[in-house]
Amino acid sequence: MPDSARPLPPAEDYLRQLSIDCVIFGYRDGKLFALVPKLVFEGDFWALPGGFIRQEEDIDAAARRILETRTGITNIYLEQFRVFGAAERTNRYLIEHLAALPADGPKGAEWIRANADWLAGRFVSIGYYALVDMRKVMPARTEIDASVDWYPVNELPPMIMDHNDIVAHARRTLQRYLDEKLIGYNLLPEKFTMKDLRYLYEAVYDRPFARNNFQKKILDLNVLERLEKKYSGGSHRAPYLYRFIRR
Amino acid sequence: MPDSARPLPPAEDYLRQLSIDCVIFGYRDGKLFALVPKLVFEGDFWALPGGFIRQEEDIDAAARRILETRTGITNIYLEQFRVFGAAERTNRYLIEHLAALPADGPKGAEWIRANADWLAGRFVSIGYYALVDMRKVMPARTEIDASVDWYPVNELPPMIMDHNDIVAHARRTLQRYLDEKLIGYNLLPEKFTMKDLRYLYEAVYDRPFARNNFQKKILDLNVLERLEKKYSGGSHRAPYLYRFIRR
Repeated sequence: MPDSARPLPPAEDYLRQLSIDCVIFGYRDGKLFALVPKLVFEGDFWALPGGFIRQEEDIDAAARRILETRTGITNIYLEQFRVFGAAERTNRYLIEHLAALPADGPKGAEWIRANADWLAGRFVSIGYYALVDMRKVMPARTEIDASVDWYPVNELPPMIMDHNDIVAHARRTLQRYLDEKLIGYNLLPEKFTMKDLRYLYEAVYDRPFARNNFQKKILDLNVLERLEKKYSGGSHRAPYLYRFIRR
Repeated sequence: MPDSARPLPPAEDYLRQLSIDCVIFGYRDGKLFALVPKLVFEGDFWALPGGFIRQEEDIDAAARRILETRTGITNIYLEQFRVFGAAERTNRYLIEHLAALPADGPKGAEWIRANADWLAGRFVSIGYYALVDMRKVMPARTEIDASVDWYPVNELPPMIMDHNDIVAHARRTLQRYLDEKLIGYNLLPEKFTMKDLRYLYEAVYDRPFARNNFQKKILDLNVLERLEKKYSGGSHRAPYLYRFIRR
């Protein structure tokens, strides 16, 4: 029985007013992407992969479970980055809409209707972010997802509640830590040119970096190993390849 | 009527399983300190200034209220740094001890007894940290505090639950951000020598910094303005004074 077919657990199994939202970043062709499910319910609802914390479950374990159930992604590095706790933070309008769906509607609607009072209340949400190799990820949707797709972070659909704001915060966190997260976090292939790396920085920061300054800054981090020149048909201007030094 | 004499609100006013713990850092005489109340209840209980979030209250506002009520400190910069959410994270032993105190015991015991079932359950806690000028802070205790004192971070008393671990995490966060937090966060007087600044770094990181490398690293941050030499009786070796450039 696939994960998605499991009956949803009783609402009493969860911490009452605490949720988790996950921002999954990937990088491809000079663009930063995020993985965003579209909900199966009537109306165009996009929402970050999220969920609740079971009473007997560590919050980090809950984040991994939610991510795995909602996107099919396993074994990736996830890190909490911020708590979203405005007093007026509530799902009320979405929940009232979903609770009004017909009983023979999509699966999950019955559970939402039964728990609408709880779900429509205030939730404080813990934001987690992850960096993944998009080529290795096969997103899988559950019964409440119509689709799970990669969107360029600069062209995200309008999401429910403060989810677009959560992505913006996650991106700022990524900018802050990019130098140290570079190693081992799958945003680039094993070997890359200095230009590949600069394009990644430009995508994450959404601004250009001057070529010479960038190279100096990066080499000063002492995290790169220089390899042979990239094959390019014998040109003497072929660029060097680099890889991260694993520590 | 002072804040501390207000009756404690009904437990129903709070989010059920979410709490806040605050780590207040100060710096003096080459040492990093944290402000830690000792609880008034029988037994030696030290605990970070903490509390709960009201249903109508933003989490950041709750953190400021808790800090103000528990320590008398107002108008300081507070920032969340990590959520502590292990499944087994509970106050049970302390609460059972407190609930067993005689009815004519310290104020607050009655409230704890009435809410012991709730208080002894699992709590996920949001950690906040602050940096304050110790000379400007006059800690004030409430009815549940026997005392509120500064302790060197390397010589903290044993605190309840994971509170010593929360301080350790806050210190690692401070180490990570020290370069950017230097400006405007009151850990040093307005004017200081390079040696003063190095001693601050050594206290926060708990390790020595080589003098010349340190000076180069700090000057490269471009956050310092060099002032006149410190008066020292005419010696030609008087050190320069610096101050942070306010942006």
